[in-house]
Amino acid sequence: MVAKLKIAVIGAGSIAWSSKIIHDLLHTPTLFGSEVALVDIDARRLKLVEGFARRYASELGADYKFYSTADRREAVRDADFVVNTAMYGGHGYYEKMREVSERHGYYRGVNSTEWNMVSDYHTIWGYYQFKLALEVALDVEQYAPNAWLLQVANPVFELTTLISRETRVNVIGLCHGHLGYKEIARALGYDPEKVEFEAIGFNHVIWLTKLTYAGRNLYPLIDEWIERKAQEYWARWRLTQRDPFDIQMSPAAVDMYRRYGLFPVGDTVRGGTWMYHRDLKTKQQWFGPTGGPDSEVGWMVYLARHEWYSSLLEKIASDPGVPISSFFPQTRTDESLVPIINSIANDQPATYQVNVPNTGAIDGLPGDVAVEIPAEVSGKGVKRPQGLKLPGKILKAVLWPRMLRMEMALTAFLEGGRQILIDWLMLDPRTKSEKQAEEVWDAILSMPENEEMARHYRG
Amino acid sequence: MVAKLKIAVIGAGSIAWSSKIIHDLLHTPTLFGSEVALVDIDARRLKLVEGFARRYASELGADYKFYSTADRREAVRDADFVVNTAMYGGHGYYEKMREVSERHGYYRGVNSTEWNMVSDYHTIWGYYQFKLALEVALDVEQYAPNAWLLQVANPVFELTTLISRETRVNVIGLCHGHLGYKEIARALGYDPEKVEFEAIGFNHVIWLTKLTYAGRNLYPLIDEWIERKAQEYWARWRLTQRDPFDIQMSPAAVDMYRRYGLFPVGDTVRGGTWMYHRDLKTKQQWFGPTGGPDSEVGWMVYLARHEWYSSLLEKIASDPGVPISSFFPQTRTDESLVPIINSIANDQPATYQVNVPNTGAIDGLPGDVAVEIPAEVSGKGVKRPQGLKLPGKILKAVLWPRMLRMEMALTAFLEGGRQILIDWLMLDPRTKSEKQAEEVWDAILSMPENEEMARHYRG
Repeated sequence: MVAKLKIAVIGAGSIAWSSKIIHDLLHTPTLFGSEVALVDIDARRLKLVEGFARRYASELGADYKFYSTADRREAVRDADFVVNTAMYGGHGYYEKMREVSERHGYYRGVNSTEWNMVSDYHTIWGYYQFKLALEVALDVEQYAPNAWLLQVANPVFELTTLISRETRVNVIGLCHGHLGYKEIARALGYDPEKVEFEAIGFNHVIWLTKLTYAGRNLYPLIDEWIERKAQEYWARWRLTQRDPFDIQMSPAAVDMYRRYGLFPVGDTVRGGTWMYHRDLKTKQQWFGPTGGPDSEVGWMVYLARHEWYSSLLEKIASDPGVPISSFFPQTRTDESLVPIINSIANDQPATYQVNVPNTGAIDGLPGDVAVEIPAEVSGKGVKRPQGLKLPGKILKAVLWPRMLRMEMALTAFLEGGRQILIDWLMLDPRTKSEKQAEEVWDAILSMPENEEMARHYRG
Repeated sequence: MVAKLKIAVIGAGSIAWSSKIIHDLLHTPTLFGSEVALVDIDARRLKLVEGFARRYASELGADYKFYSTADRREAVRDADFVVNTAMYGGHGYYEKMREVSERHGYYRGVNSTEWNMVSDYHTIWGYYQFKLALEVALDVEQYAPNAWLLQVANPVFELTTLISRETRVNVIGLCHGHLGYKEIARALGYDPEKVEFEAIGFNHVIWLTKLTYAGRNLYPLIDEWIERKAQEYWARWRLTQRDPFDIQMSPAAVDMYRRYGLFPVGDTVRGGTWMYHRDLKTKQQWFGPTGGPDSEVGWMVYLARHEWYSSLLEKIASDPGVPISSFFPQTRTDESLVPIINSIANDQPATYQVNVPNTGAIDGLPGDVAVEIPAEVSGKGVKRPQGLKLPGKILKAVLWPRMLRMEMALTAFLEGGRQILIDWLMLDPRTKSEKQAEEVWDAILSMPENEEMARHYRG
């Protein structure tokens, strides 16, 4: 079975992301013969990625036709798959809004809220990002109406919901955060590849509803780990934590488990209410010495690392004397993007963690809200499970507040006007006065970069 | 058409409420011949109300069989209608929780939130009230499965939703707040009895979707009133406002209209985010010199007036020498409770403002949430309109946040545990720290009155 496809990758100039996709394609012979259109607004970076892809493909003898274009519609036209990895504006733009917010008393920015503390999951201040993602989706609707749109760029929860409501496009949102279950398995002494798991909810807010080894429920071992091993683990971890992202077994995760009844998985642990995030000191207590990935410390580490990794890849890409394959493993990564393309294109059913409109998958949530669930994906599309259950406290004290923020962010984007921006902050324990809320938005909207956004939100 | 019914009134000892129901029954000849079971846990007050009812009936020559009982199930058994007006604990109990809250920095109490600032609309601290209302509903389910339960006691939004989810009882929630449209008509110079209106949303959060006179849309006149007359009106009103409830045309109402696009009706004006309610001074700017009904001033006025009115009625009831009818008008009040009983019992279709599960009535809201809408009520039951529309900003910045609080309050009541109480305050701009939230709940739950509630919320 070999499908010759057209695949468009939007935002391919970000080599840190696109190199992974390219690597996985090159290690998927069942997709050989396909063409891959790489799109970006940064011509220099795009050329670099195109060269990288071609050279890497020839090193491996993998049969793909890679080409680059600045014309998004040309790339999308008649595509079978469109992968959107594009983040509008670059990190610097959002860091500037964060700085402005902090000057007005909003630590880590007005965008951070209960259950979305992830520093580049741009929702209420993501006007341009929402616009870009919707424009891509509308292009798909018009120029490739039968294509699958794989939404990889964040905020996956908001954008998958937005696109599925506003267009007729087949959209799947993808994230790798659910792989956090592997860390849990490792902590319990199990081979992550041999355990079975289920984690459901919204993207970045998923909860472990199943963890088994050969049919045996491992939850009692989590309880045992907490009782007998956590203290020692944390003592060592507090001394040695190098990676701010090393928080799957943190005190925050265990505390969330105690409070809500299921273990949080992956990026979920980065969330929670302000009780975990009020200031750096609080974050350090819950997320280790760096304060976790979303403290001012951890986020600086992330940005620096991302920068360093990107420039390393760019160096590799621009030096023809270096064999690219020597920098990469000889198998696919554990990203599900390319396997999903394969499952759909070659009708090879397999189960993946996807973000799709709920339509009955999880009880107690509306049908038109994107949930993150395991689903069978094949040539026939996405086959959702039905009637999955979550405890009432997770539904109503976690997912509903998170869903409210999504609905407010989508409404702000779709309808404009100043009111919803103010209301956004009237639900925030950092807000001390109405004046503070008005002023921080004034300041954000008067940034020269936000001229169009300011017109949209003019009251 | 004369139906001989059994009607049970739960909480009838509160003469301020029950005297209205009795009055309206006595002025509804099509229900003559019915028996009315009055129930209360306060035997003295109940006897007083029973005497009042019998004497008033005989004065008017109205044929009803009134009797009182402390046995709720006896009253409910085989009833055709059960009216629940009971508020657990009396005002003093809630005022005590408010005081405790205020000592911990929660002005007007932890129960007050965005879009529920009404001082006796008890949600998160309404454990006993929820329990009582659900027990009454379960009695109805068991002993009078075909009866209609008319839920008059607040919180109508929460309790109607709760009962409709947890029992198979036919429930309608009733409130008279929508009559605020009459004030709007009067301000515009129109006879309130001659205008037509529609106001929809959730109980206490309803928005004017229609106001017409002989087919003419009156909204442009509201705009004109705001532009030309509001300033003068408010200047006079600031000098003369005697009734804290006189806020239908307040600056708060007009500001909400500007922000959300539709005019708020009745108790809706008492809501809004903390921007209208932060402290007495803020409340005074928006709601007049008393700060509106839900400031510490306005609420004192309400409680004192309620006390005074109740004791006056008790005096009338206990003095056989006084003709009761001389204290009351000769027609029905504008409450819809008794007319609704008549419409159902005698199959006389008419349109009423009711609170019932949405099931498609308002677009963009779940089916199992109680909405307040106009609906035709008859012997066939409640015929909901379908597909009513509200602006996205009202849906997502007002109704969704309000719905979230309802869901959290219901989950707290149904599932218990401490977590959801804390999360409730992590969405509150009054919360300055996690410690503050923990401490206020510790203080509330250690009140001797809250022993059972504390067990329920033990973490």
